[in-house]
Amino acid sequence: MFKLVKKSNLSQARLGELKTKHGTISTPFFMPIATQATVKGVTMSQVKDLDAQIILSNTYHLFLRPGLDIIKKAKGLHKFMGWKGPILTDSGGYQVFSLSKKRKVTDKGVEFQSEIDGKSVFLSPKNVVEIQNILGSDIMMCLDECIKWPCTKIEAQRAVDRTSTWAKLCKGAYKKQKLDRLLFGIVQGSVYKDLRAKSAKELVRIGFNGYAIGGLTLGEPIKETYEAIQSAVQELPLDKPRYLMGAGLPEQIVESVKLGIDMFDCVIPTRNARHGLLYVRLNKTDPTGQLSTNFYQKIHITNAKYKNDFKPLDSNCSCYACQNFSRAYIRHLFMAKEQLGKTLATIHNLAFYLNLMKDIRAMIKEGKL
Amino acid sequence: MFKLVKKSNLSQARLGELKTKHGTISTPFFMPIATQATVKGVTMSQVKDLDAQIILSNTYHLFLRPGLDIIKKAKGLHKFMGWKGPILTDSGGYQVFSLSKKRKVTDKGVEFQSEIDGKSVFLSPKNVVEIQNILGSDIMMCLDECIKWPCTKIEAQRAVDRTSTWAKLCKGAYKKQKLDRLLFGIVQGSVYKDLRAKSAKELVRIGFNGYAIGGLTLGEPIKETYEAIQSAVQELPLDKPRYLMGAGLPEQIVESVKLGIDMFDCVIPTRNARHGLLYVRLNKTDPTGQLSTNFYQKIHITNAKYKNDFKPLDSNCSCYACQNFSRAYIRHLFMAKEQLGKTLATIHNLAFYLNLMKDIRAMIKEGKL
Repeated sequence: MFKLVKKSNLSQARLGELKTKHGTISTPFFMPIATQATVKGVTMSQVKDLDAQIILSNTYHLFLRPGLDIIKKAKGLHKFMGWKGPILTDSGGYQVFSLSKKRKVTDKGVEFQSEIDGKSVFLSPKNVVEIQNILGSDIMMCLDECIKWPCTKIEAQRAVDRTSTWAKLCKGAYKKQKLDRLLFGIVQGSVYKDLRAKSAKELVRIGFNGYAIGGLTLGEPIKETYEAIQSAVQELPLDKPRYLMGAGLPEQIVESVKLGIDMFDCVIPTRNARHGLLYVRLNKTDPTGQLSTNFYQKIHITNAKYKNDFKPLDSNCSCYACQNFSRAYIRHLFMAKEQLGKTLATIHNLAFYLNLMKDIRAMIKEGKL
Repeated sequence: MFKLVKKSNLSQARLGELKTKHGTISTPFFMPIATQATVKGVTMSQVKDLDAQIILSNTYHLFLRPGLDIIKKAKGLHKFMGWKGPILTDSGGYQVFSLSKKRKVTDKGVEFQSEIDGKSVFLSPKNVVEIQNILGSDIMMCLDECIKWPCTKIEAQRAVDRTSTWAKLCKGAYKKQKLDRLLFGIVQGSVYKDLRAKSAKELVRIGFNGYAIGGLTLGEPIKETYEAIQSAVQELPLDKPRYLMGAGLPEQIVESVKLGIDMFDCVIPTRNARHGLLYVRLNKTDPTGQLSTNFYQKIHITNAKYKNDFKPLDSNCSCYACQNFSRAYIRHLFMAKEQLGKTLATIHNLAFYLNLMKDIRAMIKEGKL
């Protein structure tokens, strides 16, 4: 499952290998998001060309549309969307709590109204495992209660308790079905350090193939984010992967790797790309071989100053967009509202994130992070 | 320039080779449209993978945005948009007459208001040649007066006269600059057969590298379209390529090839793709080896009957969409309003058109068309 290859001397950063049914992934890694069974604006062949090791898909969205029945008939999500590598699916919990209206939460699960057809839908710890099994997920997540920031300690405590209760039920369903997939628990506890530690301990007691940290980067001060991560990580076993859900900015990824995180997913590269906000690496490292503080720059490609800029987005980037097109051309596409602009921007921003992870792995290997 | 390789015994259909600065093209051929320096929804690498021999770009749109200045600095349209094959550009005439407001036409040219910034723009026969030269077009078109259907014979006559006057001026500018590109004249005359013949004769007298037939498939009965084509073609030299502008439906392309047409462009495959209307080949040929009357089928991919249809769009098609994805998946993408649906549909419809042209060439070669 997970093999710890190296632990840094400079930080909690680690190199590892995570074995899944669809291939082994080098950690730390970043997962492009394919919410509705497609990474928005690009083909799976383009995602593969970027050396993405794994992608993430959203149970909640796929459950509502196209529905499990269709994905079952398609013989799973891999075949349905034409992706041969590993897939991580979330449990749908986060979306139920962030997107759905009229939800009712009990220890049995959560009832909510479908945003597609208004029908009432019930997700239980047991059926999120079954659903993810039907999707054919390589890495499945437990149902968790993800609460908003800010919240009171009592609310956070209640969410931790319910998340632990649900995690036990998920593990039970997983064991009963003897699934040969990976199942991860999700640590909650908002910004309360003792709750993060308690949640992590309870999940470790149940025992999972890996541990996610959920309910962070929701707007809380970044110092509190890192403290919450540390409080959770110190309770997690060294020999299991740790996944910081939904994060983050490039510098947050670097910092979180230093705190011992191995896995990331985030809409930032793809969503920002569609709005013409592009990431460009500056000097790879500072004189000591470490990442410099400002290791990247953000470009608003619609800015008039790129009108006559015939350089690639990033001269050091080997992605399809940078190898073939200029800033002036990509700007033109955005001004003319042509889809290709969003496609090229998405390809480049994903390349930026995936290359950052490659560099992070190289720096850990070389003892520089 | 143009080499006639074979003339059919069954019809006016011909096989040929058209040599351009960026490569030699087998005729008859179809040109995907890259109006704003991009084939909508796909990358140039995807267009290349479809074996497109040449693409068409629109002078009018590029002149207004990004503007000549930028394309000049980019060292031409080929470099700007990353397409290494031949490019045909229209003169902008059609768009001025179909899209622009407040236009004023004289023998000197046409003045109109930019739809981008409201500024007044003037296109003359001389400057459309210069503009297309700056774009770096392999096949340039003369400025023509394209009038609406229906129109009176007097209006059509006036447009023919003006088109001839402008054609002479275009040819003059072309000769003066000693351009090593191909320049085509455009036959006008609406549905009036004698005017079509007159227009063709006048252009032949001036002498061009090829002859386009413009101002058709604007809503007129298809019988009149074909008669107008015939009236023009009979006046055109055998040793020059003929281009039916803006056409058409698959069966219209087949019929027009039989009337001696060598070149086509049309928004149908790409525009319909974006609306989920897909073209699927049925039996390649009837028992005699010729194209059967109903050689294709149209699929509205959002139709509920494709919900559980796990076949490819077209089992005999080798395009990326058909080789990797099911109708059910592409339908899901359209229902979920995901761009990838439009992209895959565009790839397939272009494959349908380009494969049809391949089959047409094979059938002419084998003496079956």
